[in-house]
Amino acid sequence: MLITQMTSEECREILAKTGFGHLGCSHKNEPYVVPMHFAYEADYLYGFSTFGRKIEWMRANPIVCVEVDEVTGHSSWASVIINGRYQELPNTSQHSSERLHAFSLLEKRPLWWQTAQAAKEPRTKQPFPPIFYRIHIDAMTGHRAARDDDPAEYSKGFYR
Amino acid sequence: MLITQMTSEECREILAKTGFGHLGCSHKNEPYVVPMHFAYEADYLYGFSTFGRKIEWMRANPIVCVEVDEVTGHSSWASVIINGRYQELPNTSQHSSERLHAFSLLEKRPLWWQTAQAAKEPRTKQPFPPIFYRIHIDAMTGHRAARDDDPAEYSKGFYR
Repeated sequence: MLITQMTSEECREILAKTGFGHLGCSHKNEPYVVPMHFAYEADYLYGFSTFGRKIEWMRANPIVCVEVDEVTGHSSWASVIINGRYQELPNTSQHSSERLHAFSLLEKRPLWWQTAQAAKEPRTKQPFPPIFYRIHIDAMTGHRAARDDDPAEYSKGFYR
Repeated sequence: MLITQMTSEECREILAKTGFGHLGCSHKNEPYVVPMHFAYEADYLYGFSTFGRKIEWMRANPIVCVEVDEVTGHSSWASVIINGRYQELPNTSQHSSERLHAFSLLEKRPLWWQTAQAAKEPRTKQPFPPIFYRIHIDAMTGHRAARDDDPAEYSKGFYR
């Protein structure tokens, strides 16, 4: 397996193509990881959720990490790691344009609302207040792996 | 979409079947998320890595979170979230039996060593010292989603 570093453009292609990753947040130095559907544009990942531990923790500590991967085989994958910052887009006049922009990007993704909404369905029959947010990309690194011709070479001297 | 809570047994089935998840660790309240191949047995996920940020951070703060999902469609998935604790299995006489046990479990997984090893290959041609570790499962929750017959019902009153 040969691993190479991806360019910023290649990382952004993965973000635009997949729209799915794993979001990590932290509270009192305890990490929490959840799957995240997102819409990517420029320096932001736009997301949508109902209120829960993830939102509570990101409000308290906006420093987050998002890992996005595209796995096509054990020896063929790409992985992008983002260090970012949570920004909520509340339902106020000040944030209405960003909120509508987030909505317009997210609604292009099929069934994007289902997961967040369904999670609340068993608990209440009332419409829930949707929380829109975005993750500002502060830094991003990406690696891609491809199978090489002689993988056995790489096991030499492995378990000593 | 209908979401139901999984039993402990169902969670453990997912862990045994997938062997792949996303590990979150935290340092000075900054989260870090990486993909993780593992072998599951009893109350542990066994993993293998070379030295890097992940190991450095988990040595400093062993509290971790692992999310394991099995996605078969946008409306059909299972997700298990583990709160756990990092335990390194160093190459010492005291830990030799646990280390060999980890190795015996991990080597059953095809090409399990490739990712960790290949990551180091471009940097050095010397054999790297493998780091074996396990995550003790302190707590675990799981949810499963399945498509229901009338998904349109769930969009009522959504964007207000």
